[in-house]
Amino acid sequence: MKVIDFRLRPPLKGYLDTIMYSQGARRDRITGFHGMKPARSAQEQSVERLFSEMDEAGITRGVAMGRTSGPYGTVSNEDLAAIVREYPSRFIGVASIDPSDRRKAIAQIESARAAGLVGVNLEPGAYPRPLYADDRRLYPIYAYCEDNGIPVVMMAGGSAGPDLSYTVPVHVDRVAGDFPRMKLAISHGGWPWVHEILHVAFRRENVYISPDQYLCGMPGTEEYVRAANGYLAERFLYASSYPFLCASAYLAWFRTLPIRPEIMERLLYRNAGEFLGVSV
Amino acid sequence: MKVIDFRLRPPLKGYLDTIMYSQGARRDRITGFHGMKPARSAQEQSVERLFSEMDEAGITRGVAMGRTSGPYGTVSNEDLAAIVREYPSRFIGVASIDPSDRRKAIAQIESARAAGLVGVNLEPGAYPRPLYADDRRLYPIYAYCEDNGIPVVMMAGGSAGPDLSYTVPVHVDRVAGDFPRMKLAISHGGWPWVHEILHVAFRRENVYISPDQYLCGMPGTEEYVRAANGYLAERFLYASSYPFLCASAYLAWFRTLPIRPEIMERLLYRNAGEFLGVSV
Amino acid sequence: MKVIDFRLRPPLKGYLDTIMYSQGARRDRITGFHGMKPARSAQEQSVERLFSEMDEAGITRGVAMGRTSGPYGTVSNEDLAAIVREYPSRFIGVASIDPSDRRKAIAQIESARAAGLVGVNLEPGAYPRPLYADDRRLYPIYAYCEDNGIPVVMMAGGSAGPDLSYTVPVHVDRVAGDFPRMKLAISHGGWPWVHEILHVAFRRENVYISPDQYLCGMPGTEEYVRAANGYLAERFLYASSYPFLCASAYLAWFRTLPIRPEIMERLLYRNAGEFLGVSV
Repeated sequence: MKVIDFRLRPPLKGYLDTIMYSQGARRDRITGFHGMKPARSAQEQSVERLFSEMDEAGITRGVAMGRTSGPYGTVSNEDLAAIVREYPSRFIGVASIDPSDRRKAIAQIESARAAGLVGVNLEPGAYPRPLYADDRRLYPIYAYCEDNGIPVVMMAGGSAGPDLSYTVPVHVDRVAGDFPRMKLAISHGGWPWVHEILHVAFRRENVYISPDQYLCGMPGTEEYVRAANGYLAERFLYASSYPFLCASAYLAWFRTLPIRPEIMERLLYRNAGEFLGVSV
Repeated sequence: MKVIDFRLRPPLKGYLDTIMYSQGARRDRITGFHGMKPARSAQEQSVERLFSEMDEAGITRGVAMGRTSGPYGTVSNEDLAAIVREYPSRFIGVASIDPSDRRKAIAQIESARAAGLVGVNLEPGAYPRPLYADDRRLYPIYAYCEDNGIPVVMMAGGSAGPDLSYTVPVHVDRVAGDFPRMKLAISHGGWPWVHEILHVAFRRENVYISPDQYLCGMPGTEEYVRAANGYLAERFLYASSYPFLCASAYLAWFRTLPIRPEIMERLLYRNAGEFLGVSV
Repeated sequence: MKVIDFRLRPPLKGYLDTIMYSQGARRDRITGFHGMKPARSAQEQSVERLFSEMDEAGITRGVAMGRTSGPYGTVSNEDLAAIVREYPSRFIGVASIDPSDRRKAIAQIESARAAGLVGVNLEPGAYPRPLYADDRRLYPIYAYCEDNGIPVVMMAGGSAGPDLSYTVPVHVDRVAGDFPRMKLAISHGGWPWVHEILHVAFRRENVYISPDQYLCGMPGTEEYVRAANGYLAERFLYASSYPFLCASAYLAWFRTLPIRPEIMERLLYRNAGEFLGVSV
């Protein structure tokens, strides 16, 4: 069975400047909080070892999310496009934007798509000037994405902003309701607002949920799994959030969850392929 | 054992104009999200079949909630009173109001009671102009109900408003605290704010909880059941939220939950009878 | 094994004037809501019986929290210091403050420490004029505690304020983020915001969690226990919240939880000792 890991940031180019690689001790401590061991490839910053880990586990491709952040660092779309060009069988790239200028942001999206990136990743609370997901300044960008059929990924869970108010799912709920034809995937699965984000996905059928690392060892696992087995079967996106969790160890753990066998391929790759509009 | 279904809207009169009947495909999709099959009576809009389903399952009476809504449609108190007059052994009616004019709202309550309806159902987030439950404009109505011993039902869960902010239980908490002698039942059980609404009921002993359809296949089932088995035993109200769920299939499912046998009759009808002040 | 009960208010001096003793019927009803029976020592207001109960259960010492409250009553630091002086082997005292004057509050802390109290207990929502935890008027006090290495306990869960907005963990999250070197213990464990407070503790490594009475019979038990077994093992603080729960019966119940045996001593006393800076 194919596997798309919906959030996998390799040790390449600009990623190495973000704190997920430049602050390895912090990353490894977070890994331990999830009850997992660090990936050797992350500690060694070795993409070749990452490929070995992916191959051993059977992970077909990873979705390399772009990032334009103050506290967490930035990976340019140019770097991302270069990664995808160099390893087209390994990675799918999703662009990031600078939200401070709507015209520039839309130009970034256009350039990124021309360069082979397939969607837009927004991280509102992590921008140099943090925004709520339903900030008016993001609305022209949502409108552009909805009108042009561009899938939008949003980091809206975990430490996605300066404080917990940035992940309250009401912000996402408004965006999803105001742009009902825009496909919207929630990275970090809205955690810790587990019940609430699952309500958003219950009510808004354009919302996809990817709990990624927060599925593991954190409160709420059972609730995410129940939804995945039920109404979320076609909108749950598998992801490890590598390098925070080891992509291969996470997949082995994920396979132990009580998920209906007949939907496993939807969770592991088909939903991601449909969401991103790519064939795998 | 008798059964009162605390939220059951029959395919009669004004109900047929609300979207729960006029948009059958939407309703049936929601039913499926709960992992259930549509009721034949709902799809056929047949009250006779509904009565057969109720009789087979042993559902004594259903509480027909009134509704004055923008997006969801309206069932007039006159229609509701006519339904109760025609089928007094089947239905208990709870009135709705137009909250835009407090004097008119109170006159509606007085008329409705004179016509045999036994309480007031408020759906603040679903009014043509949505309100939070603790909006000052509702406070004269709460005061009237508290002073006159009128039980108040409130839809405060699920898609009860334009966005998730309308169901945050802080609004309900304030109302329950400000009107401590007003009996207040929460339809849709405050879902998805399961822990939080259960806190409200822990703290405010005038609050009753009826998770109805959101008990089924959604995150939080175990927590509602734990509370029902514990401090909520005298304030849990059984309901199917028909026609969203099939009243008889829901009851069969409800009976499979790990509920203490000795409280089952409280949950299934005695609490509702006491809350509404009707003998069954 | 030693046991420190992190929240234990004996029937002595000013405590007898607070509603936990002066309103015994209310207290006992709450006890029942948790599915527990009242402590005889609480009902009899007998400290000798409390000592018997502690000895039988093996509870080494209790942390007597100070309180300066409108609705709940006040226990002066002078009373608290007298209790600790009289029963040094039984109690550890944590001071309270009057937050309405920052200079006075800091003077209270200095006096209390000189008198043998070892930390500061803040109950923002329960002050005569309720405050949110991140109210600017508390920030000079936090700064003082951070700069002087004083551990801070905060009641931020349960009925900690006039309504549910006072326990929303975003307030605590901001405080913990703004004072990263201040050790902060959350009494009542942020309940009912279980997932959310556990996120705060995941993100802010200066935060300790003590669910105390809300661990018992309430939604969220499993999630608190999972965190205690995982990333919270060194920051979970055992407490009964006596007299709301019987200290000995609660301990017996706590020992039935599926907690890893090798961390039990951390949860039961070592974490508390480290947090308060006392040897046991």
